[in-house]
Amino acid sequence: MVLLALMQANARVLDVEANCAAVEEGARQAGDAGAQLLLTPELFPVGYAPRRLRSTFDPGTLPALRQTLASIARRNSIGLVYSLPAVTPAGEWRISATLVDASGDELLSYEKVHLFGPDERAAFAPAAAAPGVVEFQGLKTALVICYDIEFPESARAAAVRGAELLLVPTALAGGFEAVPQVLVRARALENQLTVAYANHTGREEGYDFRGGSIIAGAEGTVLAAGGTGAELLFAELGRTADAGAEATDRASAADDAVDYLRDSRPDIYRSWGI
Amino acid sequence: MVLLALMQANARVLDVEANCAAVEEGARQAGDAGAQLLLTPELFPVGYAPRRLRSTFDPGTLPALRQTLASIARRNSIGLVYSLPAVTPAGEWRISATLVDASGDELLSYEKVHLFGPDERAAFAPAAAAPGVVEFQGLKTALVICYDIEFPESARAAAVRGAELLLVPTALAGGFEAVPQVLVRARALENQLTVAYANHTGREEGYDFRGGSIIAGAEGTVLAAGGTGAELLFAELGRTADAGAEATDRASAADDAVDYLRDSRPDIYRSWGI
Repeated sequence: MVLLALMQANARVLDVEANCAAVEEGARQAGDAGAQLLLTPELFPVGYAPRRLRSTFDPGTLPALRQTLASIARRNSIGLVYSLPAVTPAGEWRISATLVDASGDELLSYEKVHLFGPDERAAFAPAAAAPGVVEFQGLKTALVICYDIEFPESARAAAVRGAELLLVPTALAGGFEAVPQVLVRARALENQLTVAYANHTGREEGYDFRGGSIIAGAEGTVLAAGGTGAELLFAELGRTADAGAEATDRASAADDAVDYLRDSRPDIYRSWGI
Repeated sequence: MVLLALMQANARVLDVEANCAAVEEGARQAGDAGAQLLLTPELFPVGYAPRRLRSTFDPGTLPALRQTLASIARRNSIGLVYSLPAVTPAGEWRISATLVDASGDELLSYEKVHLFGPDERAAFAPAAAAPGVVEFQGLKTALVICYDIEFPESARAAAVRGAELLLVPTALAGGFEAVPQVLVRARALENQLTVAYANHTGREEGYDFRGGSIIAGAEGTVLAAGGTGAELLFAELGRTADAGAEATDRASAADDAVDYLRDSRPDIYRSWGI
């Protein structure tokens, strides 16, 4: 079993030191609770402020910031998913997410494909690569970011690549509560994997975040759900590929009848022009 | 506004006369309540019994049965969606759904693409055509059937063809309640259309149906939800294309920011191999 911790918290825009201290405190508490992995919200170390990031954040500071975050993972002996701006060799700004292991070594990175709203589109360029999958503590793990999860295709692309656990840093403003409550659960159920979706709380720049983070199990069940304030959520995740496990997210009578990847018909969908 | 009625009921396997009487009674009650359209469950006029249908149902009776159902619509001045076996010119058995208007004229038909489980696969062959869209009482309307709605692509294919209302006859056995409660609501929300999902109740052949029919609005809201017994559900549906309407399913502050069809990236998904 893997114990996943999810940090729901308020970031201070462009106060990297304060935000990294919050990540460190989250990692310490999560590690003390026995978690092997801590998921943090979208752009948390820099705060969610797309236009201001683009105009005033110095990407030259990113390598040191990534070192700081890796050292937090190492110091607390815990895997960590963090999200930061990234700049491509061609100079395009992207929103990225990174999974480092408990040694601080980078296992996986991902860049956001579906940018949300005019602020993100003004500051960043969308990526085009499908989410990759790596094994973390025996669980095939993938990353997508925020608005990506609202499109069925991003989670499906992770699932067809074998993902059992999909980790989603997000920055979801108040008023969109149906996203975690309906869409995130649907992605888990329709791909038969676990989805963890970590949101901000409180105000950042002009945004009003209201938490509502969720960890949804492979049958669409709610394994953990956040309120509106800062908190850590936890969920124990089974290794779905481990036939010896007594209980796994996928284990149910429904399994024999329902296998969405087996019964999906991608050959036909392509002919439908979608 | 269109008042949609949804019939949740128990069918008698291969007792076409009793089932048509139930549809007639549903149509009468729905019409009396002012509904313009009645949605009935998958294979309701013949009962849900795939293998026994295939072995004992005479498809030569289908034209007369379709006439009977058209006359029910005509007699009660109400549009009707019914689901029946259909046999292709090549002799393949399909599960079909048909929309007739209040004159009994056929407006739209659809054949199920995703067959569920060994019984359906033993008795029927899957279709490959995308759902079509027709205008019914000013609402662009499409049909899919049961397991189809569990795959994001079927609803998306209807949405990209302009559907505002997706009608889904189903036969969902007990134990799968997350399908209406999570997946159907997700299809409505992620495609910004209304989805109505009409289930059986009680036992038919070896199946234990438990209702749970749902009408989900374009923001993932539950407009109507069934219990476990026989009942009619109703929902008033706005014409989303009618700018003069005071309130429509799509009208919300979120609309400006979120437009899933606009923000979808099908060009990229194809490169992902899904």
